[in-house]
Amino acid sequence: MKIGILGATGPAGRGLAARLADVGHDVLFGSREASKAERVVAELRSEWGERVANLHPMDNSGASDAPVVILAVTADAAIPTAKAHAHELAGKVVVSMANNLVRNGKEFNAVLPPHGSVAAEMQALLWESKVVTAFHLVPAAEFGELGHEMESDVVVLGDDDDARATLMEIVRSIRHLRAFDGGSLLNAVGMETFAAVLLTINVRHKGRASMRLTGI
Amino acid sequence: MKIGILGATGPAGRGLAARLADVGHDVLFGSREASKAERVVAELRSEWGERVANLHPMDNSGASDAPVVILAVTADAAIPTAKAHAHELAGKVVVSMANNLVRNGKEFNAVLPPHGSVAAEMQALLWESKVVTAFHLVPAAEFGELGHEMESDVVVLGDDDDARATLMEIVRSIRHLRAFDGGSLLNAVGMETFAAVLLTINVRHKGRASMRLTGI
Repeated sequence: MKIGILGATGPAGRGLAARLADVGHDVLFGSREASKAERVVAELRSEWGERVANLHPMDNSGASDAPVVILAVTADAAIPTAKAHAHELAGKVVVSMANNLVRNGKEFNAVLPPHGSVAAEMQALLWESKVVTAFHLVPAAEFGELGHEMESDVVVLGDDDDARATLMEIVRSIRHLRAFDGGSLLNAVGMETFAAVLLTINVRHKGRASMRLTGI
Repeated sequence: MKIGILGATGPAGRGLAARLADVGHDVLFGSREASKAERVVAELRSEWGERVANLHPMDNSGASDAPVVILAVTADAAIPTAKAHAHELAGKVVVSMANNLVRNGKEFNAVLPPHGSVAAEMQALLWESKVVTAFHLVPAAEFGELGHEMESDVVVLGDDDDARATLMEIVRSIRHLRAFDGGSLLNAVGMETFAAVLLTINVRHKGRASMRLTGI
């Protein structure tokens, strides 16, 4: 599948891009500066060779030219980036994966925007796009470790049934990742705030927790 | 440990009470009507015999007379019950385990009170108690199936360090349950809204999901 990634040079973006290219997707690797995208893709190629041959470096506008576009920018940049590319993203499936978290002492807390979650906020802004959301609980570094199989379960949410099904298919194209349908964007608050809990557990129990569902 | 349960005759309460008695706690089994508590304890004794010898039926006021009191009433009764027993609960560790969820078509959504979660709302109301919260993701029926080992991971939250440690100890007294420290009550929203996601997954994937953390 042809998949665009905005902010692909960031910690979550570069790993996810490499992982998606490795399993056969055609990845438009976007950054604010095309030159930065080229530099990071060159790094990934020197590390993973032919496995990431399907990474195509370009600017974020270029990377918006795909039926599915993932916003992999940091949480504080998610809404501004969506706004900057709103027209290019019209009619497309747009994937939000940001958790807007702050660290307060020995815990992380979620900061929720007026619509209740980053994903719902993005859908309100991108009213001509189909916003879906996933990957909230996957440690960013795990995507990029192509030598290791991923182990998380991924919950996918969105208001549009077809868009949700498309994202679930993408998730399942990554070996060992299971995709579960968690409902509409009303429930995105559940993933973004649970991410704060999970990171707090990591701090307090000194680990790197992933979530698995049993009994299903 | 001596543990009071308010609303112990309900679906979550009766199972949790039986489970706690089975692992050796002294359980004050409370209900609005002492006679109902007696009837349900008699049912549990006929089913589990000596394993639940430590269940003591009484009314909710009587069951408030313990250092740790669990509110196992349904979500819509959680705040009114806390209010009705506020004076008796002063100075005690009070455990909220309610998720205030509604079913909308093929999904569940969380309905959050003004303070952001049922647990935070309860702490605001019970300002002389130490409110902690846990058990959000454990299927209610699992508690009562004493013939089966439980399998969930349980996240414990609360603003008071000692109260949180006490509840973690209670969780760990149940064989195979692992307890994780998820931080303050600010993060209770994460557990209550993730519960809506988990129940939605159960509806859409036809299962009874529990949550396990890996990598920790």
